[in-house]
Amino acid sequence: MMGFIKRSLIGRPLKSSELMDQKLSKTKALAILSSDALSSVAYGPEQILIVLMAVGAAALWYSVPIAVGVIVLLVALIFSYRQVIYAYPHGGGAYIVSKENIGQNAGLIAGGSLLVDYILTVAVSVSAGTDAITSAFPSLHHYGVLMAVIFVILLTILNLRGVTESATILAYPVYLFVLSLFILMGVGIYRIANGEVPMAAHTAVGTPVAGVTLFLLLKAFASGSSALTGVEAISNAIPNFRKPAPINATRTLLAMGGLLAILFAGIVFLAYYYGIVPNAHQTVVSQIAEESFGRGIMYFIIQGMTALILVLAANTGFSAFPLLAVNLSKDKYIPRMFQIRGDRLGYSNGIILLGLAAIVLIILFGGKTESLIPLYATGVFIPFTLAQSGMMKKWWKERPKGWQGKFAINMIGAIISFTVAAIFFMTKFTHVWPILIFIPVIVIIFHRIKLHYDSIGPQLKLDAENPMPAIDGNVMIIPVSGITKMVENSINYVQKLHPEVLIAVYIAFDKDEMKAFEEKWNKWQPDIRLVTLYSPYRSIIQPLTKFIDKVEKRARENNYQVSITIPQFIPKKGWHNILHNQSSMLIKAYLLYRRNVVLVTIPFKLLK
Amino acid sequence: MMGFIKRSLIGRPLKSSELMDQKLSKTKALAILSSDALSSVAYGPEQILIVLMAVGAAALWYSVPIAVGVIVLLVALIFSYRQVIYAYPHGGGAYIVSKENIGQNAGLIAGGSLLVDYILTVAVSVSAGTDAITSAFPSLHHYGVLMAVIFVILLTILNLRGVTESATILAYPVYLFVLSLFILMGVGIYRIANGEVPMAAHTAVGTPVAGVTLFLLLKAFASGSSALTGVEAISNAIPNFRKPAPINATRTLLAMGGLLAILFAGIVFLAYYYGIVPNAHQTVVSQIAEESFGRGIMYFIIQGMTALILVLAANTGFSAFPLLAVNLSKDKYIPRMFQIRGDRLGYSNGIILLGLAAIVLIILFGGKTESLIPLYATGVFIPFTLAQSGMMKKWWKERPKGWQGKFAINMIGAIISFTVAAIFFMTKFTHVWPILIFIPVIVIIFHRIKLHYDSIGPQLKLDAENPMPAIDGNVMIIPVSGITKMVENSINYVQKLHPEVLIAVYIAFDKDEMKAFEEKWNKWQPDIRLVTLYSPYRSIIQPLTKFIDKVEKRARENNYQVSITIPQFIPKKGWHNILHNQSSMLIKAYLLYRRNVVLVTIPFKLLK
Repeated sequence: MMGFIKRSLIGRPLKSSELMDQKLSKTKALAILSSDALSSVAYGPEQILIVLMAVGAAALWYSVPIAVGVIVLLVALIFSYRQVIYAYPHGGGAYIVSKENIGQNAGLIAGGSLLVDYILTVAVSVSAGTDAITSAFPSLHHYGVLMAVIFVILLTILNLRGVTESATILAYPVYLFVLSLFILMGVGIYRIANGEVPMAAHTAVGTPVAGVTLFLLLKAFASGSSALTGVEAISNAIPNFRKPAPINATRTLLAMGGLLAILFAGIVFLAYYYGIVPNAHQTVVSQIAEESFGRGIMYFIIQGMTALILVLAANTGFSAFPLLAVNLSKDKYIPRMFQIRGDRLGYSNGIILLGLAAIVLIILFGGKTESLIPLYATGVFIPFTLAQSGMMKKWWKERPKGWQGKFAINMIGAIISFTVAAIFFMTKFTHVWPILIFIPVIVIIFHRIKLHYDSIGPQLKLDAENPMPAIDGNVMIIPVSGITKMVENSINYVQKLHPEVLIAVYIAFDKDEMKAFEEKWNKWQPDIRLVTLYSPYRSIIQPLTKFIDKVEKRARENNYQVSITIPQFIPKKGWHNILHNQSSMLIKAYLLYRRNVVLVTIPFKLLK
Repeated sequence: MMGFIKRSLIGRPLKSSELMDQKLSKTKALAILSSDALSSVAYGPEQILIVLMAVGAAALWYSVPIAVGVIVLLVALIFSYRQVIYAYPHGGGAYIVSKENIGQNAGLIAGGSLLVDYILTVAVSVSAGTDAITSAFPSLHHYGVLMAVIFVILLTILNLRGVTESATILAYPVYLFVLSLFILMGVGIYRIANGEVPMAAHTAVGTPVAGVTLFLLLKAFASGSSALTGVEAISNAIPNFRKPAPINATRTLLAMGGLLAILFAGIVFLAYYYGIVPNAHQTVVSQIAEESFGRGIMYFIIQGMTALILVLAANTGFSAFPLLAVNLSKDKYIPRMFQIRGDRLGYSNGIILLGLAAIVLIILFGGKTESLIPLYATGVFIPFTLAQSGMMKKWWKERPKGWQGKFAINMIGAIISFTVAAIFFMTKFTHVWPILIFIPVIVIIFHRIKLHYDSIGPQLKLDAENPMPAIDGNVMIIPVSGITKMVENSINYVQKLHPEVLIAVYIAFDKDEMKAFEEKWNKWQPDIRLVTLYSPYRSIIQPLTKFIDKVEKRARENNYQVSITIPQFIPKKGWHNILHNQSSMLIKAYLLYRRNVVLVTIPFKLLK
């Protein structure tokens, strides 16, 4: 039953040999890896306008020069990352680039920032997608958080099904989104060219506005560069590309950069020309679409596509997070479990953790995009800076042919990224301070985990001179809860192993019952010694552990090993498991970690 | 480390013998079991006004006669439940009373309703408590859901610490709440008597108002009776009282009923006299307090006490839910795990489940009290009706001295409760329909669980004529991941058991490595047969299970039992556990449920 549900939600398990078929073509890769970057045009321009509105609607024309700055930044980043792809064809991105070129801690800072950043990718994209929906249907405004949470759950399930299937699902909305925004821009420009849009709606570019400070403009610029989050996704995921992976990845990167620049410029331009003022209940894109088409079919298509691409953009996080986790895990900085491939070859542990963390963030921030974005953007530009600096160091050390040009490109990338991160800290400190706590903490945790893993090797190393001493005998304990087939089964098994000592233990809750049981037992199994323990307060664990402690102490003196049998029901239907084995689990948990005893779990199949 | 955190959050574990000391005195019981009922005056009167406002402020005078109706209902319920306490001194409430007197399904309907109802108690009380806080501090309005969720988490921790401690914490706010409302009422009445409140504020009682229909009045009455939720809590918790439990419980019940009637009447009266109109941003109690004291210290004390008692009222749910779960679990309708007492003798599983479910409901309904209340009240009045009908049947069957009077009291209780439930279904069907789906579903689940548990007994029964056949030998498999001390340890253990067949299994990811390992092994342990399995795609589970399947098949033909050793790291620090044993867990999970093999878990202690 549970198996059936799991199957229909997650799909049939894949054989390992099917791994090769899961590689991405360019068109699919553009869809799956660019949705984050492309979709951020849905909130990036709006962030610029929100900052400028602090001075007033007259200041909104500054969005045009700021957008030019953001696009320059974009071009620099695209060329920087192009070089990363060729230098690191096995994928890596900020973590590996920083680690290899700058050093361990730089890598860990980048890795730590990125882990959080991917969680924020999911939280921000899904929240912004929900905003697109509530802009179209204001009555849903109150259910924003709930909707966002449901979207994250659906995405988690999608990703547990495996990467190619998600890509197929993703390809359509991404391309439809781009198409519908192109239509929107075409219609907008046509209307402006035809003079259908009143000139009065906007202040002319260049009009001086009182109260506009450099601080404000920097803040607006930094906020606008949140539209560039997601640009690094391709460089992390090169191993997912079909061969030749670096070439395919570079082409995909350039296509993405071009589309992103056009969409971003178009939206800023239309918002400026229409004189759109940001408000809490309707997104800027929704206002532009309404202005262009009214609330007609085309308006709802644009909102729908925007919502869809945003919700699915969260998928970039789902593709990138598990890959980064594997890298960190291989280097022993995070638990090994992130390397275990799940049924469908996705890295299930990373996917599930990511989904849960994103849900927590969405609930914590009430699904409010503006509150999440500063944290998000800072978390992105720190690893950007580290990755570009790492590349600079690499060129400096290796000095391949034409290294000066490459060095210059990465230097520009590094300087701009650092500047954006610094502006965030200066202008939005109240929003981004948690990063300053989180990063040192996560780096310390990384180190402690590595320290522990590194200590394991020597402890496991065989000492040829002093092999571990053989044991002189076995003590086996069979806890019995009655005279049942399950006990009979355990006795059959244990007797054939001929332990030196064999004891059955019974825990009685009242004295009469205890006597009665002893008599019954002696009739049934006169050869097996029975110890009865009286437990007036119905506890099982306490008397049992006390008894085992005593036996264990005496066994150790004689160099004997104590084992204890735990019967385990194997029910016929999966859901029956929650009806059984709870006490066994409790006993196991208590015994295994507290005493030096071997646990022998003996299955007993139920037939119905 | 984890142990320390657990200890400081939950407190030291209690010995079973301390169970007796955990019984409640009357004053503590009044606090812990009445907070739900008493606190509902914070939202009950408001629900009446919200319904009447559909017609207009002129209709608000109807709240006075409606309140009289609600108090009549309260008196009837108090006397009905007084009889329940004497008839069922071991506690029980609606589930046991309905089950024993009407039948299994009636009991299950009552039990199912109550389980949900306790979850709603937590959700509604905490949401209403959050409303009291946001009324006082409007800037917190946006964080309502987050605050409510945090409160539920705190309550869950409090309850995992154990019932008496919660009661001590609870006693003060409950009594302070009652005291502060008495002061509020005193000041209010004084000001009205002194003519300080303008007569124009309210319409005189009896003024005819156009648009007031019987339907509306019934709806208002039903909504107002949400203030009576929680009245049954005492009758469910009699075993928690000091001896003589029934007498102490009855006195507590009467005290609670008296206080509830006074507070409810006082608030409705003041709201009416002040002409208070319900609004979404400030609760009615907050408006009364502001009217009486301005936003001074006394206002904030009243809001604070109201919030505190409401948040803690959720505690009634936490006291009652696990007790009901134990009763259902003893009757085999829900999984046995709800009978396991936790470290501090609370019923931890029930407590944790309740906390989680309440959080889900709060998030689902966006913390909106009015949306949760119809569901809540219906969930209460269904078991009320069943319990009272059950009592009627009991008197009819048993006919003790003076049974006619008792019968009449319970009959009145049953009729009124049924009427209220029926009114909810008639007037708020769009809110309460989920109950109609949930109850049949949960009753079916109850039956399926019982069916399964009942099938276990016969399967376990010893067949004296045909004892299970002894096995003829043992096959032990040791999976090895390298030549380590851990493997040496496992070999030492297994060899002393002298199994008929002993096989070590190694899974290699490439062929050269496989060869190399075979040579190393044969030098180290020439006497133990090694099987190497080649796994090109780095899967461990797949080749291992396939191999074990083969061995198991052959073993079965020879009546041999297959066992497999699983090494288990026992790390020194608790948190290291998440760094280890993930593969073992996976192997265990796959093997135990899918094949008939014994799992032998061999501990290996890490020294750092």
